[in-house]
Amino acid sequence: MENRLAALESRLQELEDKQAIAEMIASYGPLVDSGAADEVAALWSEDGIYDVDEITMTNREQVRSMVHSTGHQHWIKAGCAHFLGPAKVTITGDTAVAVCHSLMVVNQGGRFVGRRGEASADPEAAAPEFVVRRATAHHFELARSDQGWVTTRRTSRVLDGRPEAPELLRRGAMGQPAQAPEGTAP
Amino acid sequence: MENRLAALESRLQELEDKQAIAEMIASYGPLVDSGAADEVAALWSEDGIYDVDEITMTNREQVRSMVHSTGHQHWIKAGCAHFLGPAKVTITGDTAVAVCHSLMVVNQGGRFVGRRGEASADPEAAAPEFVVRRATAHHFELARSDQGWVTTRRTSRVLDGRPEAPELLRRGAMGQPAQAPEGTAP
Amino acid sequence: MENRLAALESRLQELEDKQAIAEMIASYGPLVDSGAADEVAALWSEDGIYDVDEITMTNREQVRSMVHSTGHQHWIKAGCAHFLGPAKVTITGDTAVAVCHSLMVVNQGGRFVGRRGEASADPEAAAPEFVVRRATAHHFELARSDQGWVTTRRTSRVLDGRPEAPELLRRGAMGQPAQAPEGTAP
Repeated sequence: MENRLAALESRLQELEDKQAIAEMIASYGPLVDSGAADEVAALWSEDGIYDVDEITMTNREQVRSMVHSTGHQHWIKAGCAHFLGPAKVTITGDTAVAVCHSLMVVNQGGRFVGRRGEASADPEAAAPEFVVRRATAHHFELARSDQGWVTTRRTSRVLDGRPEAPELLRRGAMGQPAQAPEGTAP
Repeated sequence: MENRLAALESRLQELEDKQAIAEMIASYGPLVDSGAADEVAALWSEDGIYDVDEITMTNREQVRSMVHSTGHQHWIKAGCAHFLGPAKVTITGDTAVAVCHSLMVVNQGGRFVGRRGEASADPEAAAPEFVVRRATAHHFELARSDQGWVTTRRTSRVLDGRPEAPELLRRGAMGQPAQAPEGTAP
Repeated sequence: MENRLAALESRLQELEDKQAIAEMIASYGPLVDSGAADEVAALWSEDGIYDVDEITMTNREQVRSMVHSTGHQHWIKAGCAHFLGPAKVTITGDTAVAVCHSLMVVNQGGRFVGRRGEASADPEAAAPEFVVRRATAHHFELARSDQGWVTTRRTSRVLDGRPEAPELLRRGAMGQPAQAPEGTAP
């Protein structure tokens, strides 16, 4: 009886951990696309790293600044979806690795307002009002903390043929750490 | 022992609730893209609301009619994916809030049949056979019912720069109700 | 007490099964986009079937060959995301059915390098660097095995108006087997 209870508790804990991590990752897009800078930053540990193609942020304050930046605020105002896919999560005690793709889908600004109205009225017209600006590989390293699971390092590379991007997908799917990718980007 | 059992039951119930809601949301796209009108309608409560940019449906019958409409049937025949992302779910007793993005991806009708054939034969040619017609923010309010979890109000706004759309993402990610967005868009 | 334990074990098993299947499906994209041929093949049973529009693979070796093929390697080198959505899973004892959409998003090769650089520098320019080559319906039949859940038959049809594609979505969402779709594609 004791053994069965303990087994249940342990199995349930693993499911809860995976659920919590998936939930955290699923909240990134909605939070970043609504400019919720504090909540986005809180997905990382205090000195968590967000290493993306053009920039590496090394703590919550820098993540917050990215959300507040003119560039990011522009995307929100123009219309933008950071659309992350379902993450595959591998847990090892108090740390974890997760992997997913994302699409950054952006509205074509005000340029198509007229056509957009027409497109709504006429279903025959499948006008491309949005474009896929980026498809990206995301590798997350996570840790259990007092505030639940947080990202300690997220490494993101655009899938434009640079070899680090598929390598991140492979390592993430296999539950391996990202390792600093060499030769990061042209 | 009793305490441990009760704790397990309660924790498991929460995971099952989140799973059931995620599953319901994951079934929307496949059901609506296959014209399964009754099954789509059954995702809402009998008087559930589906408030989308151009139209507000206020019961299952109206959701069913939307699926049967000429416009929607056109999209199915032309080729269409209502592609919803992983939802973030927040449960409070017998109600819940969920949030996700979606992409409405449509085939470019029969206009590109020739090019499509060529594209398949020649992997060099990355011809865009499909376009992203919309990227949308979805906010779900849900309730536990005799038929499981159902949507009582779904509010969807296209991410084209109108401020209600990111606001829905923010409120959804934080587990807050949608509230009737003011100035609901042109 | 015994009854409560047994009920917990059974409910937990179902959640674990759904989690394992969702995880397996979520790993497909990262593995196939990184060319991890053995790991992709291992998602199927030894004689598992992958029936996709242009080709039907009937065992792991053929799945492995598809990953190694010139065509697939081209996509990896050019930049490609096989982006699968969250799956809806229906379990019946030791078999299961799952359904999801996917988008195959491809980089526009080297042709837009110049414009891409400009686009990064100028957030006003939402240049479409990636295109959606395909939106596809996926139906999975799965079985519990010594190596965990594996796919015994995956049937995938592009959502370009051919009737088998929405039919796969409908059957998958309702937990029904795919059945050999008649009149498979032009």
